[in-house]
Amino acid sequence: MPKPRDLELRLQKTEEQLRLFQKVSRLMVRELSFQEVLKGIVSLVVEFTQCDSCLVYVLENDELVLCAANTPHPTAIGKVRLRLTEGLTGWVARERRLLAISREAYKDSRFKSFGELPEDKFEAFLSAPLIARNRVVGVINLQHRLPHQHTGDEMEGITTVGEQMGCVLVLARMASVAPGSGEPVELALPTGPVPVKQ
Amino acid sequence: MPKPRDLELRLQKTEEQLRLFQKVSRLMVRELSFQEVLKGIVSLVVEFTQCDSCLVYVLENDELVLCAANTPHPTAIGKVRLRLTEGLTGWVARERRLLAISREAYKDSRFKSFGELPEDKFEAFLSAPLIARNRVVGVINLQHRLPHQHTGDEMEGITTVGEQMGCVLVLARMASVAPGSGEPVELALPTGPVPVKQ
Repeated sequence: MPKPRDLELRLQKTEEQLRLFQKVSRLMVRELSFQEVLKGIVSLVVEFTQCDSCLVYVLENDELVLCAANTPHPTAIGKVRLRLTEGLTGWVARERRLLAISREAYKDSRFKSFGELPEDKFEAFLSAPLIARNRVVGVINLQHRLPHQHTGDEMEGITTVGEQMGCVLVLARMASVAPGSGEPVELALPTGPVPVKQ
Repeated sequence: MPKPRDLELRLQKTEEQLRLFQKVSRLMVRELSFQEVLKGIVSLVVEFTQCDSCLVYVLENDELVLCAANTPHPTAIGKVRLRLTEGLTGWVARERRLLAISREAYKDSRFKSFGELPEDKFEAFLSAPLIARNRVVGVINLQHRLPHQHTGDEMEGITTVGEQMGCVLVLARMASVAPGSGEPVELALPTGPVPVKQ
């Protein structure tokens, strides 16, 4: 039988992950703007993983546009754009797979430096696609400044958050966007008829 | 310190709830029809709660229409309709609150019998609103044939499932509905511009 201390730790971790999903779910039912949803989920993810950076890219036509960050990036939000062939982020969107690198992410052959983001020098990188109705609609990246071995809970947690964010982004997109509302990006999300597999 | 056996039980329950949300989330990203989503979530909820009946009502104009059930209800699906002033289900939609009755649900003053549903004689009743973008879009009911004291996990679980189902129903609704596709109900979900609170 496992030791009580190990059981307690495992219980604590499981409860933390459960609370993350409950909080994300509570956010999903509110009538929030696109930007409010992004900010809310980024805060929850940072609290859960204690990462140093959380960036969210949203697919606009064939480009991934930086739309949210946990720290101020006044010159980068809405400006940093990646093609699907570029960087670790592009790879995640293209391959639709989770990516976890525990150290020296900047040495990965797929890595692309922007020069303008401090995150370019961070060691650890965890990234998951945002998915809605079987389509990639963005990417969420978590970075640790120092090397960090990602746990199974972190990988499972960010996968589920990516799925939830995909759905909630499409829903928030359905809300009317008033001109001058500060919405920085027009999204190419599937708002029209979506072909349904038979 | 809690006993190892108690910790193990608590861990098991927490992991079950976590797996429920992960499975619901996996369903949400697939490109499923409205009916497939309903069926999938009903199966997961029955597996999680071991209830005898799970019925899902979806709001169509001002009526709640029975749209899914875990057991065959060939004459009732799409036919059983409730006003928001009727029954326990109407109360949950109107008040937007969880309702848990552990025994003799049929004696509750809000109860409405349909005659055609065997569930009318079931003892225990747990019901939660389906919510999307701050609007009730339906109700999910779990019933046990015998008296059943609902646990906190069950109540929390069904609340979150109701939130998730609300979002996924609106998304599935966005998919084009081909004429004669077997979609039984035209939904009055908020597909147009939704006013955003300032």
